[in-house]
Amino acid sequence: MSKPELAQRISEDLSQGNIESIREALSNVHPSEIASILQNFDPDDHTKILEALDNETASEVILELDPEQREDILEDFDADKIADIADEMDSDDAADLLGELPEQTAQSVLDKMDPEEAKDVKPLLKYPEDTAGGIMQTELVKVSQNSTVRDTINWIRLIADEVEDFQLVFVTDNQDKLLGQISLTKLILATASTNVTAIMEPIEVTTTPYIDQEEVVKIFQKYDILSLPVVDSSGVLLGRITADDVLDVLSEEASEDLFQMAGVGDSLHPIYTPTRTRILLRAPWLLLTLIGELFIAFIIVYAFQPTLEKVAILAAFMPAIMATGGNVGLQTTTIIIRSLGMGTINVKQMFKLVISEMKVGLSLGLICGIIAALIGALISYNQPEVTRLALAVFIAMVSATLATSFIGVAAPLVLHKLDFDPAAASGPFLTMFNDIFGSVFYLFIAMLIL
Amino acid sequence: MSKPELAQRISEDLSQGNIESIREALSNVHPSEIASILQNFDPDDHTKILEALDNETASEVILELDPEQREDILEDFDADKIADIADEMDSDDAADLLGELPEQTAQSVLDKMDPEEAKDVKPLLKYPEDTAGGIMQTELVKVSQNSTVRDTINWIRLIADEVEDFQLVFVTDNQDKLLGQISLTKLILATASTNVTAIMEPIEVTTTPYIDQEEVVKIFQKYDILSLPVVDSSGVLLGRITADDVLDVLSEEASEDLFQMAGVGDSLHPIYTPTRTRILLRAPWLLLTLIGELFIAFIIVYAFQPTLEKVAILAAFMPAIMATGGNVGLQTTTIIIRSLGMGTINVKQMFKLVISEMKVGLSLGLICGIIAALIGALISYNQPEVTRLALAVFIAMVSATLATSFIGVAAPLVLHKLDFDPAAASGPFLTMFNDIFGSVFYLFIAMLIL
Repeated sequence: MSKPELAQRISEDLSQGNIESIREALSNVHPSEIASILQNFDPDDHTKILEALDNETASEVILELDPEQREDILEDFDADKIADIADEMDSDDAADLLGELPEQTAQSVLDKMDPEEAKDVKPLLKYPEDTAGGIMQTELVKVSQNSTVRDTINWIRLIADEVEDFQLVFVTDNQDKLLGQISLTKLILATASTNVTAIMEPIEVTTTPYIDQEEVVKIFQKYDILSLPVVDSSGVLLGRITADDVLDVLSEEASEDLFQMAGVGDSLHPIYTPTRTRILLRAPWLLLTLIGELFIAFIIVYAFQPTLEKVAILAAFMPAIMATGGNVGLQTTTIIIRSLGMGTINVKQMFKLVISEMKVGLSLGLICGIIAALIGALISYNQPEVTRLALAVFIAMVSATLATSFIGVAAPLVLHKLDFDPAAASGPFLTMFNDIFGSVFYLFIAMLIL
Repeated sequence: MSKPELAQRISEDLSQGNIESIREALSNVHPSEIASILQNFDPDDHTKILEALDNETASEVILELDPEQREDILEDFDADKIADIADEMDSDDAADLLGELPEQTAQSVLDKMDPEEAKDVKPLLKYPEDTAGGIMQTELVKVSQNSTVRDTINWIRLIADEVEDFQLVFVTDNQDKLLGQISLTKLILATASTNVTAIMEPIEVTTTPYIDQEEVVKIFQKYDILSLPVVDSSGVLLGRITADDVLDVLSEEASEDLFQMAGVGDSLHPIYTPTRTRILLRAPWLLLTLIGELFIAFIIVYAFQPTLEKVAILAAFMPAIMATGGNVGLQTTTIIIRSLGMGTINVKQMFKLVISEMKVGLSLGLICGIIAALIGALISYNQPEVTRLALAVFIAMVSATLATSFIGVAAPLVLHKLDFDPAAASGPFLTMFNDIFGSVFYLFIAMLIL
């Protein structure tokens, strides 16, 4: 059945209250497909459709939804139902789910969960969700250093259901400290009586639970691994992070950079986030910029009214100067922020980077400045002050691109060094700085030479 | 030894020409660390340091470098040396490396490579590097449907050295068509005489080689898998893509969006890309915008000179209107582009999305318009036309935010539907559109009411 047909059938089933038929229709559909089909239905129907599914499928569908949608649905479920769903999840996903619930609900869900599952989830709740601890899962396969390959295989037989996906067996000492790892290939090829320490390999890299998830992404990229053990300060194995979790983090972090640069604040689903929330999250940067720009207006009115009255068409070139300076600044800051994010540059190279970017900015400014001055002179050829006007445009454009190149490279580097998010630099700061050059500084130059 | 100490030692070794000591100093350092230490040296020294390493380490270091740095180094190596290095790589990485070389060099490297390795690499060269075929590797473990678990384990024993990392054994029929997969856990737990078809699981999802790598990322995110088989149109197994390769693609794609939006064109390392290249790659968008803005200047000079001469301080509010409209547009387009990239919205919801974003844009425009009109009136309280001036600012600001909201949501959706990159929409198009509203439309309104 195609997606539209499926949606059609479910829609009919819903109106007839035929829950059994919904379950049957969705029985062979992948949970992420179901999540995408849900987008065709009203929020009220989401709950009904999810109730028709078995708990395992429902748990997977819920994980695929947008946080806002998930919140809506969970509000309609009681603690028993949420506990049943959480029981089906990996510990890291269950912990995230509990973290999204109101504290009281989370506690009663935890009480109603299967004790074995709850035991896996509880230690994860203390880690902030954007840390290594927040994205790790506690389900893993570990054996003590005294085990043989036969013991290990027997142990895997016992827990294979609980720990679904694993690529490595971890070997720990008697204090639960991580000693090494065994790939499943090695395990397959070894003889049954071999001791695990004889075939284990050293752990290339580990992390600790309070490390920022951005750092975790960098570790995965640097070492090209599929699984990363998380240990506490004394080396005791706490959990593992897998590459598929890191994929989610990476796409989240990339969005964060984009949203920061656009002053959006946070991920906002354009349909499911309430309009009010979206306005409130987007307004701060806008208002900050607006206040700065009105300050610019104030300066123009009080300092440059005579200049503007003398040569009214000065105003005609303000948009060009502001747009050019703004674009050069945005280009520079984007390159620097992204290079910092990917770890291809570091703050120690600051001097080299600033010089290098300003060289490019100056060249671009000279190119644009010459073109703007020439065309500007052409446009205003019949004005009495045409040559000086063109000169003012040229000077202002070169200064604006130089200034925004400097801020575009220096601001993110300084913010990064001070442990702030460099993406925040391209916000109000860069826009205002640029617009001062494109208007106030330009009019100042014009006043001097006209 | 700390990184600065290591760099210091290598620097001394280089000046003394002590290659042996460099090799020793770096013998226990992770290739990605070595790549990062290289950043402290002049490009000329990079080649010398790499020559000091064994081929396997050198191959891993080279993969960690920026494309520009890699190109510089490979230019200094002869085909024999490059072939030795490529022999040590996975087939997908070796194919990428060959793809970066001039065609003639690539051919002679291929001729000098180990014939076994070259055989793995050759079929990959025909796929564009941003497709599934371009990121897949041909090394994998497959067994025919007639094999037993014992056969499979014996086969793994034979090829374990060549295929280093694998999580799944693929089962194919007599025409090499993919039938199913076996996890290593299943293999460990099965008895030796079992036929593989008895324990294999169905393949959840496959892809074909010419699919765009962005789609591959979406498949990994949707299905939470660590490895994806690539098959041709008749189902014959060609290769597999692993999650660590997808991590690289994802961070590349996220950069691409950012760079597109900033009009940077492509990834440019701020130090290693030659200044000339950076200027050439950044200039096109700038010049396009500049031409548009100079056209705006032309309109202002010819249509609104009398208006500006009458009320010179009209110009004072142009930056505020342009900045507000521009920001609202950038916010909107960022949200839409990112949501399209993550697959959380689809083009079928276009109407809903446009209405929804314009509601938010109108609200933000009204808030900013009222503030700007009030403060604008305050700033210019002693001007004769203050009320009408404030009204013009208000109308222009609301119109600008409404218009840029519309373009910000509609342009990326339309581009996406037409199979263009939606990130291109936020470039010259949005800036120019916005600046027309912030200057020409504003002055038009002012002319009408003043």
